Amino acid sequence: MKLYDGGRVPNARRVRVFLAEKGIDVARAPVDLGKNEHKSSEFSRLNPLQRVPVLVLDDGTILTESIAICRYFEELHPSPPMFGAGAKGRALVEMWQRRLELELYLPAATVFRHTHPAMTGYQVPQVPAWGEANREYVERFLEILDAHLEGRDFVAGDQMSVADITGLIAVDFFKAGKIPPPEKHANVKRWHSSLAARPSARA
Amino acid sequence: MKLYDGGRVPNARRVRVFLAEKGIDVARAPVDLGKNEHKSSEFSRLNPLQRVPVLVLDDGTILTESIAICRYFEELHPSPPMFGAGAKGRALVEMWQRRLELELYLPAATVFRHTHPAMTGYQVPQVPAWGEANREYVERFLEILDAHLEGRDFVAGDQMSVADITGLIAVDFFKAGKIPPPEKHANVKRWHSSLAARPSARA
Repeated sequence: MKLYDGGRVPNARRVRVFLAEKGIDVARAPVDLGKNEHKSSEFSRLNPLQRVPVLVLDDGTILTESIAICRYFEELHPSPPMFGAGAKGRALVEMWQRRLELELYLPAATVFRHTHPAMTGYQVPQVPAWGEANREYVERFLEILDAHLEGRDFVAGDQMSVADITGLIAVDFFKAGKIPPPEKHANVKRWHSSLAARPSARA
Repeated sequence: MKLYDGGRVPNARRVRVFLAEKGIDVARAPVDLGKNEHKSSEFSRLNPLQRVPVLVLDDGTILTESIAICRYFEELHPSPPMFGAGAKGRALVEMWQRRLELELYLPAATVFRHTHPAMTGYQVPQVPAWGEANREYVERFLEILDAHLEGRDFVAGDQMSVADITGLIAVDFFKAGKIPPPEKHANVKRWHSSLAARPSARA
């Protein structure tokens, strides 16, 4: 199999951090987003949405969506469990993965896409008023997350999960949209620092 | 356990359709969104994001996010599999569930939230330019989906999955944002009509 991977973009990094936590090596094919390689007709055949990452299996099956790719590896290599264990554990990881993606990562990415001059040609149309509104959504969710993380090392259960990885890439993406780091939110800061200190965070 | 459920909103319906396909009965507590019951302090303790559905387990565990609730029931009642079977099957359901949610349901909901007068007090701020832009995203994804559904009854694999349910609630939500039904897209129309004709669609 081969992982088409795009450098610094958060969704590509999410898969790399996941693989590093699992200790899995996969052959990688770099896609140069700066040269618009993800918009080539060759790459568009793999993913008509023109986004990385993409995993092509040996039988030719094409998997897109970073979380779907992570789940495929979870099924092949169940240990350590990164999508939770047991019915309740798996549901809680799904819940927090979604909250961190839809309430933190997506708003932070929206700020960047709709306010940064470098995104003018990518985010069409760019709607600055919508970008600015999302700063407030990030702030609002950080309050909820900070309260939840009181006394917790990880966001769902006692072990690191894919939900924590989504949180890591979300907070690391604040800088791109000039969102201040979560200094006021002591629990978020502690949780993020601990995730960022793991070797997997350098993937 | 008890399912806090909110009438016509798509995410509440997604769980009800899922339970109907599985043949599972769950005690329900209706939340009247018209009376802002989801914004009460009592409900906010269950979900600080103030959204339905919420599932409260017998041990007091609170599950939010419709897909996390569906996954919990999938783990308890694995048959028929609605999240796919095998590593590849599960990854493909995850991939299509995400595509249908992020590229069809979310844009369709964004059109409604940012353009409909009834949403002025709920979607704050309402950014009409962003709502209008999402009509185009819906249209663009329908092209991709229509090509994918050529010769297929279901979006991922040979059986109905939670990804199809997300597609059903997405297309049924077009009307709220005055998005035209997918008449031009013959495969999407056939697939949606077939899902809408199942008894579960009335849930």
